[in-house]
Amino acid sequence: MTTIKVNASRKYEVLIGRGLLADCNELIGKATKARKFAVISDDNVSPLYAEKITEALRAGGSEAELFTFPHGEASKCSDTLNRIYGFLAKNHFTRSDAIVAVGGGVTGDMAGYAAATYLRGMDFIQIPTSLLAQVDSSVGGKTAIDIPEGKNLVGAFKQPNLVICDIDTLETLPRDFLIDGMGEVVKYGMIKSKELFDILSSHNIGNIMEVMEDIIIRCVSIKRDVVEADEFDKGERMLLNFGHTLGHSIEQFYNYTGISHGRAVAKGMELITEIAEKKQMCREGLAEELVGCLEKYELKISVEPSTEQLGGACLNDKKRAGGSISVIICSDVGASSPVKMTVEDFLGFLK
Amino acid sequence: MTTIKVNASRKYEVLIGRGLLADCNELIGKATKARKFAVISDDNVSPLYAEKITEALRAGGSEAELFTFPHGEASKCSDTLNRIYGFLAKNHFTRSDAIVAVGGGVTGDMAGYAAATYLRGMDFIQIPTSLLAQVDSSVGGKTAIDIPEGKNLVGAFKQPNLVICDIDTLETLPRDFLIDGMGEVVKYGMIKSKELFDILSSHNIGNIMEVMEDIIIRCVSIKRDVVEADEFDKGERMLLNFGHTLGHSIEQFYNYTGISHGRAVAKGMELITEIAEKKQMCREGLAEELVGCLEKYELKISVEPSTEQLGGACLNDKKRAGGSISVIICSDVGASSPVKMTVEDFLGFLK
Repeated sequence: MTTIKVNASRKYEVLIGRGLLADCNELIGKATKARKFAVISDDNVSPLYAEKITEALRAGGSEAELFTFPHGEASKCSDTLNRIYGFLAKNHFTRSDAIVAVGGGVTGDMAGYAAATYLRGMDFIQIPTSLLAQVDSSVGGKTAIDIPEGKNLVGAFKQPNLVICDIDTLETLPRDFLIDGMGEVVKYGMIKSKELFDILSSHNIGNIMEVMEDIIIRCVSIKRDVVEADEFDKGERMLLNFGHTLGHSIEQFYNYTGISHGRAVAKGMELITEIAEKKQMCREGLAEELVGCLEKYELKISVEPSTEQLGGACLNDKKRAGGSISVIICSDVGASSPVKMTVEDFLGFLK
Repeated sequence: MTTIKVNASRKYEVLIGRGLLADCNELIGKATKARKFAVISDDNVSPLYAEKITEALRAGGSEAELFTFPHGEASKCSDTLNRIYGFLAKNHFTRSDAIVAVGGGVTGDMAGYAAATYLRGMDFIQIPTSLLAQVDSSVGGKTAIDIPEGKNLVGAFKQPNLVICDIDTLETLPRDFLIDGMGEVVKYGMIKSKELFDILSSHNIGNIMEVMEDIIIRCVSIKRDVVEADEFDKGERMLLNFGHTLGHSIEQFYNYTGISHGRAVAKGMELITEIAEKKQMCREGLAEELVGCLEKYELKISVEPSTEQLGGACLNDKKRAGGSISVIICSDVGASSPVKMTVEDFLGFLK
């Protein structure tokens, strides 16, 4: 087991290894004083892991209640959140109790937001079971729900007490979700680590599980460094948005159902790097190298809207501040920086 | 104008004086870099103050949009909150913009919660126009909404950038609301200040406005001290709940419509002090002295439920933690402390 310590407004550990869930009661018991837990999961993950975790907590002498909601991004909304609040109230949860999120990004984001806001804050444990959640959304304290006007528009910074990444849970992950998670993994290589990118380029979707523990440790370490430098997303943390500005527009174009987050981010990275290369803002050949890597993970996709159309859709994006937008550009593998431009220059840049 | 500096996780000032709203654009401009404002108010306060504040901000060169909702506690719910989020999204508000709450406790709590959560946090200005909001809810960063299962069960700690208490706004406050606010004012005297209590005892509801500026300065100073000692409500801040445990049960018994918050708190203080005196936990004659003061402000009321009934209703209260409850007892005027007891002992205590 590898332990990565995160030094944010709250100090906590990310545990990475195989078979960790067998010891979940002990691991959780060390990270919180709570002895009453609301385990929150979706109907896919609940029978696989959340029910067992609930049982393990009870066997360890704690109270534990399981709340399950229908899987999918459509559940990450105020309706499900209100049902979680009702569940917490009816089961008499207090500020001394804890929420345990078991699942992918939707579960972690929404359960974390409930933990941030119910009674103005409860303890919170993340048990991510998807690749995307293990390398990205479970670490760093960003929680959110979607509203009809846009994705992740409402949220809170809520650092967890503990994150448990059990690599074994990825064995039950549908191949499609593994591919999806690899989008964010390639991103980490592009923005911060040539070493990681080289490992990815010398593997493919068929054999990447062989080195997955190493991959996750590298990704979480990068995320930890970025979050420690800029917990509240005012500078350095923007680098994590590489590929996300156009990526979000792609997801939005397909109503968040046609193209998954990781694939949309992959396309966003590809488009922005192609433009950067044309404008001589990065090393020659970088776009081709990126696309080569994406192809190994079945992340080279086509989208219907033009780059300009996607740019227009960005303007209501929350990363836009006071009429300007920060675009993340990689000048080479592992070397990224934000480029601030006015909305007009951004649209011109995309032409 | 008196300036009280609050040293919480964010440092900010509470400005107290007469005629301050005339300079609101300049005062706000010094406290935030934002130049785009969402002014949030209810339909009672909007025509009196919020419309003028919106105009003043525009006249000062900022963008300002006004959102008005129906007055009353029933509006402090997830439906109104979602409408505020929609308003912010449709008007392209970003993380660099600010929310200005103009009104009483309901407005401040809900607008503050929106400011805490929209895009994970915007700047936030409080302009409280009720006595209750000026002395209590606008200072200290507690924001919340009600859910069907209970009042203030969902919320966040969100310190404002600035609080402007213009005493002149209290001149338009219906007498009923002045009485209501005096409940919390008497509370401050009881928990922390014999001097304040003596001023209150030598005045009455007919002439208290003559010394209101001094009263508000004293109350805000007490609240500031308590909040600085315990921003996140884990110890000292509990003292502010004097009278609130039974008070909340009274409000709940009447469905939050029959008896106002200040009156319910007054009754809660009276009941708990009578019991404390019977159990010899306070100076003899304290209950009578408290009741004498409450009578001067028309805060001596009768309620239908018995003290034991009210106690039973407390148990789902959020101040209950792990099977125990902290009851605030005043041993004398200005001397308060929390007494932690099990749920069973609490019910026995009330007999």
